[in-house]
Amino acid sequence: MEIDKTTELRASVKLVNDRLKFSGEVLNNNPVEIDYISPLGDNDGYTSLELLLLSLSSCVGSAVLTFLRRMQKEISGCEVNARGIRNTSHPTGFKTIYIDFVINSSDVTMDDFDKVLKLAEDSYCPVWAMLKGNVEIITGCNIVKHK
Amino acid sequence: MEIDKTTELRASVKLVNDRLKFSGEVLNNNPVEIDYISPLGDNDGYTSLELLLLSLSSCVGSAVLTFLRRMQKEISGCEVNARGIRNTSHPTGFKTIYIDFVINSSDVTMDDFDKVLKLAEDSYCPVWAMLKGNVEIITGCNIVKHK
Repeated sequence: MEIDKTTELRASVKLVNDRLKFSGEVLNNNPVEIDYISPLGDNDGYTSLELLLLSLSSCVGSAVLTFLRRMQKEISGCEVNARGIRNTSHPTGFKTIYIDFVINSSDVTMDDFDKVLKLAEDSYCPVWAMLKGNVEIITGCNIVKHK
Repeated sequence: MEIDKTTELRASVKLVNDRLKFSGEVLNNNPVEIDYISPLGDNDGYTSLELLLLSLSSCVGSAVLTFLRRMQKEISGCEVNARGIRNTSHPTGFKTIYIDFVINSSDVTMDDFDKVLKLAEDSYCPVWAMLKGNVEIITGCNIVKHK
């Protein structure tokens, strides 16, 4: 069934062994292998927390790129590296997530980056909004003039 | 470099076209194709919000299975289906996420499920903990006696 992704999204995970390995799926996409670290799992796939980092990095990356392009900036490459530091007691989610951008551009300035990042943080990155108040998110950016 | 995933996790996404398609990666795993829906993206991969659903479903699924197994319950299958309803204004993250379990088991009862789900919600599902207060999460479970 087709759904309108602007209003609703779906995903499912299915256990594929007798431990904690799941196959994750959304219609029309390649399955994602998901597993837990040992000793409970076999570390044979993405952990749930790594998927959260991918979710946040791609979300903030998309917002930043969209606003930089609206400012007519030239962008020849973009990488977003995320590092999450876990709490030491349960629930062992992230206490702090570091999000580091590398943007290849001849004309983006740090001021431009700070401006669009603020838009993402305040309103346009829904994943960030869902973590707000629960996780500290610290960002950085390295602008590389030549690819 | 090997990192201790009990304390720190890493992931990165890299722009792979001139729109909003990213390739997401964590060391030793197959890359995940990530894209935004049209008109900004081409809908050619998981959206950030779908990755968040995979993250939450696998996290709560792992916690529930772990505790049911500790109760010596027999489990022959498990599927977790997630459906997220987005806010209608920015930030358009999830207002409500529905998490529906299908557990194949000869001896798990709804009381068992409720008990282990509460453990997951209160302490042992880190992704749930990071969304708490920001997103309403509603769960359900269907226990299937024969696979």
